[in-house]
Amino acid sequence: MTTPIIFDTDPGVDDAQAIAIALAHPEIELLGMTTTFGNVTIEVATHNALLLAELGGQQIPVAQGAATPMVKPKNPPPGHIHGDNGLGNIALPEISTQALPQSAPQFIVEQVNARPGEVVLVAVGPLGNLAAALQLDPSLVDKVKQVVVMGGSIREGGNVTPVAEANIFNDPHAAKAVLEARWPLTLVGLDATHRCVLDPDSMARIVEAQGKLGRVLGESYAFYRTFYQQALGIDGCCPHDSCALAWLLRPDLFTTTRGTLSVVTEGLAEGQTILAPQARAFVDARWTRDATVEVCMGADGPAVVEWIVETLTAGA
Amino acid sequence: MTTPIIFDTDPGVDDAQAIAIALAHPEIELLGMTTTFGNVTIEVATHNALLLAELGGQQIPVAQGAATPMVKPKNPPPGHIHGDNGLGNIALPEISTQALPQSAPQFIVEQVNARPGEVVLVAVGPLGNLAAALQLDPSLVDKVKQVVVMGGSIREGGNVTPVAEANIFNDPHAAKAVLEARWPLTLVGLDATHRCVLDPDSMARIVEAQGKLGRVLGESYAFYRTFYQQALGIDGCCPHDSCALAWLLRPDLFTTTRGTLSVVTEGLAEGQTILAPQARAFVDARWTRDATVEVCMGADGPAVVEWIVETLTAGA
Repeated sequence: MTTPIIFDTDPGVDDAQAIAIALAHPEIELLGMTTTFGNVTIEVATHNALLLAELGGQQIPVAQGAATPMVKPKNPPPGHIHGDNGLGNIALPEISTQALPQSAPQFIVEQVNARPGEVVLVAVGPLGNLAAALQLDPSLVDKVKQVVVMGGSIREGGNVTPVAEANIFNDPHAAKAVLEARWPLTLVGLDATHRCVLDPDSMARIVEAQGKLGRVLGESYAFYRTFYQQALGIDGCCPHDSCALAWLLRPDLFTTTRGTLSVVTEGLAEGQTILAPQARAFVDARWTRDATVEVCMGADGPAVVEWIVETLTAGA
Repeated sequence: MTTPIIFDTDPGVDDAQAIAIALAHPEIELLGMTTTFGNVTIEVATHNALLLAELGGQQIPVAQGAATPMVKPKNPPPGHIHGDNGLGNIALPEISTQALPQSAPQFIVEQVNARPGEVVLVAVGPLGNLAAALQLDPSLVDKVKQVVVMGGSIREGGNVTPVAEANIFNDPHAAKAVLEARWPLTLVGLDATHRCVLDPDSMARIVEAQGKLGRVLGESYAFYRTFYQQALGIDGCCPHDSCALAWLLRPDLFTTTRGTLSVVTEGLAEGQTILAPQARAFVDARWTRDATVEVCMGADGPAVVEWIVETLTAGA
């Protein structure tokens, strides 16, 4: 049985690998990709989504979305992490396809309404498209099967501020709308993704198995790896976005807690995700709303990495 | 060699034990206690500080301080944790001593100026007295030997909100003034104190050794223990405030990180302490001020508990 998903993305090196998984995995039906600013500009994001689908030999609809945050000014894309072209500044082939005429939020609304109760939204960038889709059609909360968000951090600390993860920090108001909505949602944040390190040998196996797409994944990984070596002292990369798909198909590899999520939109802690665990009483009623979500608090990192490698080498 | 300290406190069950340590330890010269609202009202705090010194058979100056937070409205004291009388609602003997005529901030300023470079401020309640002392005499930052604060949480989560520890939450503006000041400061927060659980058997040894003071420590511990059992499912209590003294005399039992501390004063994350580790670069310059402090990120819990028990049973 396959799961129909819409993959909302800002590719991005780790996005590229997750897209390869979404293209490759036999249990995923990739209905389309929706793009957002984040790791790159919106134009680069859309270009890369189209390119990666082409390199994977598949026709996947791509709908362009948010170019900016909802409220705050846009930060410049982190060219030192993903490269200005989002794929480690490597030379890229020309593309021959183009995005859909409709916007990302419109595409999400159409697809979910066409198959109520079936579609999973997997979002691995800033959450403007999902927030805008909810504005267009609030009934989505009852029509999606599941929302999986790569973003946030509960106990792990942040990666752009001491408390904020980049996807949430890039558009905290959108994140608030999405993470506090009453729909079935799982957050896969740094508490889980930092447990997973994709080592160079594993990457080499993926490159070998993935043909033209593999070359792009491998060369962009090399650029991203340099950032991890210099900034964090790790030899290897955290496959953040792939972890969202890993959770979807192998939730047994993650530890989770249920609770109420809140997002800080202003001040020092801007972009922080705060979890009030369901089992715990706090002094203030604002922490005990009845809408609860599932939050990944840890992962079996080596097993997640092995799942990624198996998925991307299975056909080879 | 002894260390002269001023113990700033809101006793409180775990404060009472820390006061017993400050009275008992041969390496501590207890110059005085300054009191604050927090676990109890200011009147109860001052009463209990006087009582505990009397029960310990010592003449210790007590100066009364902050009755309320600097800016926010005062929360009611947590009677369900410490009892309305701060000592588990047990019957208490009459006291025969009284507080000094001068206020807590004034007392701190006088003592530190009398012995520049020698005095350690150990603060285990909301930080209004230290903040007010800094307002009276900003030169204190260069005259104290060390400031040790029990409060805050970096990775551990909070105890009154999902991210805020009670001492900081009770007066975040005072905490901001104290934790962001340029003086030598160590934060001993929940990341360390939650590693330490004082079990009932250890407490029984302390009660036996501490005479009249021991009876009060033991009976109030029994009340506090009920809270830990019901709220947290732990049989035993975290000796939060004693950990500040444990760090002072046995820093080898703690793991620490240097960095810049910030305190959130408004909004959802109100009362949160945020650490930007010195070794880590973040996107925004506000995280990389050059004033750094030391923050306890962990503790050898059993060794800390053993140190507490040894200290309080040494003379028996």
